[in-house]
Amino acid sequence: KRQNPSTWKKILGFEDIFSVKVWRASMAELLGTAVLVFALDTIVISSIQTDTKTPNLVMSTLVAIIITILLIATFPISGGHINPLVSFAAALTGITSFTRAAIYILAQCVGGIFGALALEAVVTKKIAHNFSLGGCTLNVVVPGPDGPVEIGLGTRQALWLEIICSFVFLFASVWMAFDSRQAKALGRVTVCIVIGTVLGLLVFVSTTVTAQKGYAGAGLNPARCLGPALVRGGHLWDRHWVFWAGPAIACVAFALYTKLIPSQNLHTIK
Amino acid sequence: KRQNPSTWKKILGFEDIFSVKVWRASMAELLGTAVLVFALDTIVISSIQTDTKTPNLVMSTLVAIIITILLIATFPISGGHINPLVSFAAALTGITSFTRAAIYILAQCVGGIFGALALEAVVTKKIAHNFSLGGCTLNVVVPGPDGPVEIGLGTRQALWLEIICSFVFLFASVWMAFDSRQAKALGRVTVCIVIGTVLGLLVFVSTTVTAQKGYAGAGLNPARCLGPALVRGGHLWDRHWVFWAGPAIACVAFALYTKLIPSQNLHTIK
Amino acid sequence: KRQNPSTWKKILGFEDIFSVKVWRASMAELLGTAVLVFALDTIVISSIQTDTKTPNLVMSTLVAIIITILLIATFPISGGHINPLVSFAAALTGITSFTRAAIYILAQCVGGIFGALALEAVVTKKIAHNFSLGGCTLNVVVPGPDGPVEIGLGTRQALWLEIICSFVFLFASVWMAFDSRQAKALGRVTVCIVIGTVLGLLVFVSTTVTAQKGYAGAGLNPARCLGPALVRGGHLWDRHWVFWAGPAIACVAFALYTKLIPSQNLHTIK
Amino acid sequence: KRQNPSTWKKILGFEDIFSVKVWRASMAELLGTAVLVFALDTIVISSIQTDTKTPNLVMSTLVAIIITILLIATFPISGGHINPLVSFAAALTGITSFTRAAIYILAQCVGGIFGALALEAVVTKKIAHNFSLGGCTLNVVVPGPDGPVEIGLGTRQALWLEIICSFVFLFASVWMAFDSRQAKALGRVTVCIVIGTVLGLLVFVSTTVTAQKGYAGAGLNPARCLGPALVRGGHLWDRHWVFWAGPAIACVAFALYTKLIPSQNLHTIK
Repeated sequence: KRQNPSTWKKILGFEDIFSVKVWRASMAELLGTAVLVFALDTIVISSIQTDTKTPNLVMSTLVAIIITILLIATFPISGGHINPLVSFAAALTGITSFTRAAIYILAQCVGGIFGALALEAVVTKKIAHNFSLGGCTLNVVVPGPDGPVEIGLGTRQALWLEIICSFVFLFASVWMAFDSRQAKALGRVTVCIVIGTVLGLLVFVSTTVTAQKGYAGAGLNPARCLGPALVRGGHLWDRHWVFWAGPAIACVAFALYTKLIPSQNLHTIK
Repeated sequence: KRQNPSTWKKILGFEDIFSVKVWRASMAELLGTAVLVFALDTIVISSIQTDTKTPNLVMSTLVAIIITILLIATFPISGGHINPLVSFAAALTGITSFTRAAIYILAQCVGGIFGALALEAVVTKKIAHNFSLGGCTLNVVVPGPDGPVEIGLGTRQALWLEIICSFVFLFASVWMAFDSRQAKALGRVTVCIVIGTVLGLLVFVSTTVTAQKGYAGAGLNPARCLGPALVRGGHLWDRHWVFWAGPAIACVAFALYTKLIPSQNLHTIK
Repeated sequence: KRQNPSTWKKILGFEDIFSVKVWRASMAELLGTAVLVFALDTIVISSIQTDTKTPNLVMSTLVAIIITILLIATFPISGGHINPLVSFAAALTGITSFTRAAIYILAQCVGGIFGALALEAVVTKKIAHNFSLGGCTLNVVVPGPDGPVEIGLGTRQALWLEIICSFVFLFASVWMAFDSRQAKALGRVTVCIVIGTVLGLLVFVSTTVTAQKGYAGAGLNPARCLGPALVRGGHLWDRHWVFWAGPAIACVAFALYTKLIPSQNLHTIK
Repeated sequence: KRQNPSTWKKILGFEDIFSVKVWRASMAELLGTAVLVFALDTIVISSIQTDTKTPNLVMSTLVAIIITILLIATFPISGGHINPLVSFAAALTGITSFTRAAIYILAQCVGGIFGALALEAVVTKKIAHNFSLGGCTLNVVVPGPDGPVEIGLGTRQALWLEIICSFVFLFASVWMAFDSRQAKALGRVTVCIVIGTVLGLLVFVSTTVTAQKGYAGAGLNPARCLGPALVRGGHLWDRHWVFWAGPAIACVAFALYTKLIPSQNLHTIK
């Protein structure tokens, strides 16, 4: 089916720039992302500070809970993206216009900065140094026998991990929220719980599967990586593009998938 | 839109002073807060006394459960505030009149005192000394090599932690109870569980993230800080204003946010 | 009742080969199985890497969660098989045509290969070596006092375990999805949770009950065994037929059972 | 009220012997009990093999889950007894005829044997020796300073435990399935969850309360005790009658109770 100009106009949706509603909704995205970054990073720090043998399990469970709750809180206002990955995927699959997605992503990035600033205001210097303010890192410089050496994940491996984890996230959870057939049948709370749970699982898997010191797990949310990088700088900028390129590639692959599968229900429980 | 005098009258709601209903409802707030203070503090003491490596996790889970239950219990009578922070936010966002909020806050403070007295009646002297009766503390005096020294959190850091945690609390959970669109879709029990869970998470995060001895975590409820301070006095009064100023600032920021976001539903699952 | 030629035509369903819908739906099966293989194997690796005394319990819980979610995600598109075992059983019991089942199984096998490739892209060499990329193994070669020795499960025992576990899986969970009486009464989410839970339980039981080093638990999904075997080769091909023969025998037994039991409701809650 | 001959005919229901439907339904009972015995015993073995300090808790939770699922799976076909205790109680309270109950009990005993055989096929010799194939034991022979001694539970204590646990099971859970008022109000899934949970609890309580080595907990299902006893023999036959007499006595007591209580609804939530 050929798409006529009016369809393109709708897809791009330039008139959203002048929509007060969209800008107001982006406030929820901004604050939602700020709270997300603050909550995620304090959870990570707290879990590792706690004297438990399984900090990753504790961390993942709490991440699943807080994301579920934030999605429920922001959903009725802005649609509950609080993640550039979701906004971009929503634009590619035609859920929102590209203009609205751009405004949301901008708001999410500003929110990420606010979250990182809030974090810096409350933690002590020592913790801030040890944890890089919860930023997305691929490697770390440690003292070695012949002076400081850099250990961490290779670029290729990190990019693949980012692409695959982002795709799993989109395929296994975001899809349920985008597909009206699913969203309706499952209900809002179930969808938010599924998304939160999948993200929690991915955090658990990506932090332990590489077993590589210096790698802080898959980013899965470029806004949460950008904030700490801007606030703290330094080696957080090192190969920062991976956390943007990976999700972007996953979004394109996911959009292709949604175009390929039949849009009519094949199986229904009548 | 300009608000006429009758609107202002409704917002202030002076006639609530003479409403027997409001005073009766405040009884639920008083007893609810008393039970909350008693339960919270016994949970904190029990968790730390328990020989577990992860007292913070145990404490947070129990806090989440008890707050959920108390909210479900008091909701149909008074609206389930049992926290001056919630009452003040409810007044600022127009859910209740300022007069009713003031009566509730008064009741909550009296309840906090009763809770602290109840606690003093049941714990042994030794425990009462070690735990400051569950009060909100920023620092502690410990013996040092050159005489007793005071260690704890700086005022700026403590205030920021109080503001940010209060805002996260309001943004991620109380909002669901205040927004009729959300409250209706989610149901009362889900809302209470979300509020309890967020508070539990904040307790976990704020007690571990600073990793600072002497700091007992974010207050998040001025009434529960006032009670022990009045009953025990001493260093519990030290910078006590932080536990009132922080939540108040967060309430104002939250009220601004609720004014900014669009009040119509942008996203709905039809 | 004698089945006339038109019934046989329907059962075989050769026209499904030319159905674009079926091939598109098989895309969901392909990607679903790829995500499943990737998720399952990272979960197994993460659980064993985690410093916990009960890795099997952690693993089983996470497996139950991820399978539940993937089933919910793929159900409305392709019917949510993502397992040759389920597709074959669906064909035998008349839920889908044999042609569609064959297309699905092909897609699942390709998906399994993709999942294994994705896994190889993200894990380090050391982990890939230790875990055989999550493949289905029956034995392992370990260094012994008189040179390397092979330890593991006998063929007979492994085949029985595969047959029995597959039958338990079909009998206790898949049946609920196939029987329209059940599926309707229980609802889609409950059915998916039950299937996920039973698989999680079988993973727990089959990995611990033999207490035999080298045996990685019941396969229960030939596609997830084929992928790693093709990608890594080596001893993963050793007695690989067991992981195909076991489920196939269980499917035939299950189909016989469904023919034997009365198709009318005997007990209903009116 | 005097019962006339036709009522007696209905209660005994000899015509059920020639009902193909009943014999077909008994297939579900047979396979259900086989799966139950296999699942229960592998769960017990797995839980004890797992290096956890609380095997009883793990075991009880998994038992509750698997029984719930098996009941949901067999309910619409045969009524979901998979336990001679339930079939006998159903006959005594008039839910099914005595003939049908007898056919079911026969099927369950055959199923129990199949389950025990399946178990023997998959476990290694060492585990089979240690765990008596999950049979119901009252005592165990251990090496002592003066030759092997027998330790375990006294007959009187074991019988009382069997009677009381069976009665609690019938009173607290099976009753909900039998009473149409209850079953309707609660729904099928809730009833199955309650029955599974009560059985899980009883397993936990009966295995820990005696703290007696050699006693494997209350049987609560004669069919699951008979299977391993027939397959393995030996000391599993020792005082085997207790596992039949206890439930039988409890059934009679329960039937008397159901006759005593008023059959009209006293309290209903309309």
